This record gives sequence, structure tokens and C-alpha cells, in this order.
Amino acid sequence: MVLTGAEVDQVAGLLSLRERQDYSIHGVERVLDTVFANTLFSALNPESVSRKKVTLDQSFALPGGVEGTMFASPGKVPLYLENAALDRPEEFNTGLELRKDGRSILFVPGAASIPPSMQARTESADLIFFDGTLYTDDEMIRVSAGTKTGRRMGHMPITGEGGSMKAINGHARRIYLHINNTNPILIDGSPEYLTVRAHGWDVGYDGMEFRL
Amino acid sequence: MVLTGAEVDQVAGLLSLRERQDYSIHGVERVLDTVFANTLFSALNPESVSRKKVTLDQSFALPGGVEGTMFASPGKVPLYLENAALDRPEEFNTGLELRKDGRSILFVPGAASIPPSMQARTESADLIFFDGTLYTDDEMIRVSAGTKTGRRMGHMPITGEGGSMKAINGHARRIYLHINNTNPILIDGSPEYLTVRAHGWDVGYDGMEFRL
Repeated sequence: MVLTGAEVDQVAGLLSLRERQDYSIHGVERVLDTVFANTLFSALNPESVSRKKVTLDQSFALPGGVEGTMFASPGKVPLYLENAALDRPEEFNTGLELRKDGRSILFVPGAASIPPSMQARTESADLIFFDGTLYTDDEMIRVSAGTKTGRRMGHMPITGEGGSMKAINGHARRIYLHINNTNPILIDGSPEYLTVRAHGWDVGYDGMEFRL
Repeated sequence: MVLTGAEVDQVAGLLSLRERQDYSIHGVERVLDTVFANTLFSALNPESVSRKKVTLDQSFALPGGVEGTMFASPGKVPLYLENAALDRPEEFNTGLELRKDGRSILFVPGAASIPPSMQARTESADLIFFDGTLYTDDEMIRVSAGTKTGRRMGHMPITGEGGSMKAINGHARRIYLHINNTNPILIDGSPEYLTVRAHGWDVGYDGMEFRL
């Protein structure tokens, strides 16, 4: 398991895997410390579940000969820690690159923007999973589902000025994930769905499989 | 929402209800304090989710004119707190009685035994949900699914000496819940399923509805 953050939707699923399953959890120190400061997560008995601290921008070994690297992604700390004073908040929002046999996967579920170092990773990747939270930055406000823009929440929009759909190209297969329920790309055949498809993107769903 | 304990399977679902849903969470002080000491549960914003402390054996009001009473049930503290020194551990395992218009429901998802006070409640209830974790006390050991007996885990068995199936009778409709995946009553038509049915019990499932 690799944790790219400590937000509820990134860690709560661990509680469904607890008890007598042997696996390792990789993550940066800030994230692992935050998660396991919650006593509920003591249900993940260290005898079964080992915790592996990862340093940003340094590669680490994963099972099956896969090599991983975590890197900071522009974004924000978990909502439940927004009012806390935190050191190194940039460690709370990371992306993950996986490499094996000269092929690579990029996994970036949250990004408020794409800095040059991340842009370079997107250009060499073979498969990219990217933050597809909102189609337009003010989408939640327009449908009265919230009061925040996407960027305020740490998520760049798919379209509009600086949108991810056009910012990321290259040869990789590209998949949107972390898609909010206001995002019209979730509707099969909608104009927005057809637009991202026409720009070479797929919309992620549970059970997708890939072969590189 | 009423929390009868702080075990992972009693509270983790709250994280799926978070954000902008208005409701109240009732529970004894030990349980509420334990849950909300986990910073992850700050996602349940107090502006939307109010916390109502309940005292054991004292009735409290619930929506719709329903009156509730929580009471101690023999059992144990959450697994993830088993090695902690805890005051008043008996507050971690409770049952709930709901009453309206002279009808009552008893909800006891965990009980290591049935003390006389609980026995009296079962005799006056119209609908009982009861701890159906294991069919036989040593079931998990026999199928190599664990090293503990049911009673060691705070759950009396359905059958055998002191089993719940025969200990609880009266006029109530009776439903087993909190059923472990080793329990053969989960298999439709199994001898064990037919046995509990013949003794007036039903096996709970998601989506059951009742009218009293």
C-alpha cells in the first residue's frame, strides 16, 4: 500500500483491510505519523502491517521488482487538519511514480497546478492517473454543492485557463480519477465526457485493468 | 446516530457520512471521547454533526418521539485499545433500548453473557437484534480463522452451554446480527440456519425493514 496523503478518502479504506492481512504501508513521515496518531488505526497490528517511511524524491523498492518515487504535488493539507499549525504541509499532498522494465506509471490524485518537474514526469510516463475532481473551477458553486472553487480545495480543473486536459499530453494513456459527483464527465455520452475522450483522456472506474 | 461502542466496525462508517449532512451522534462519554480523540473524525464538522452525551440507564430523546436508553452489556473494550489502561471499561460495550407508543426494540450487537437486567429487557421487547457473532464458542479456532474463543472476544455463542438461542425467548421477533464470516447461519439452508429458524430467530441482512 502506498499512501499519497492522509485525507479521509485516502486512508479510511485501510480500516476495511485490518486484521491478519500481511502487507506494508509506504508513505512520507508526515502522513504515516498523522494516520497512526489516530488510535483507531492501531487495529492495523504492526505484526501484520509494517510501516515504511519514504523520503520525497528518493526511490524505494516495492514488491515485484517495481521501483517507486513519491514527489510533492501542489495542493493542501487534509480538510480535518486545515486549522492546525503544521510543519512541512507540502508533504501532505504527493504524487507517485512507479517504474519497471523501462515503463512507468504516474499517479497524481490531487494537484492544484503542474510545476515543471511534474510536467517532465508526465512527458516520460506510459500511463497517467490524474486529478479529475472538477470539470470547471467554479462548478460546485454554480450547482450549489459547495462554496469553494476547485483550486481552493487544491484541485486544478480539467478545463479553462491552465486546465489539466490540455496541459498534459505526450504519449501516455491518460485516466481521470478522484472525480467529484458534480463533474459531468461521469455521465456517459455527456458533452463533457465526449470532450475529454476527444482529447485522449479516459474516465476511471472501479475494476479497470491495464497492461503496459 | 447512536454509537453502542467505539470498535472499528461500529464507527468507521461515520467517515462515509461526513461533510454537510446534519445529524446528531449519541453515545456515552467514554465512547464519544475515544472516537473524537481520533483527529480523522474532525471531518465530522461540529457545525453539522452535534455530539450528545448519554448516561447509562437514563432515557434520552431521539427524533420522531422515540425514547432511548443505553445500558452496559458484558463484553470488552475495542481491540485497538486492549493494551491501554482504561477507566470504566464497561462503558465501551453497551446495548440500546428504543421505545415509542408502548412498543420497544432492543439492540445488543455484543454480549458475552446475559445478566438478569438484560434478560428482563428481552422479555418485554417486541423486536430484538442480538449478537450472532459465532454459532459455537470455539468455531474460529476449529476452522483456523483465529486463536480466540467467542467469549474471549466478548461474544457469547448462539449454541452450547448458555447460548443465546435458547437463553432469549418471549414474544419478540428475534434477529441475529454482527455475524462473523465463519458462522454457518450465513449459509441459506444450512443445518445451523435451519436450527436458529426453528427456534424463532431470523438472520439479519442489509436492507431489512420492520413495522411494529
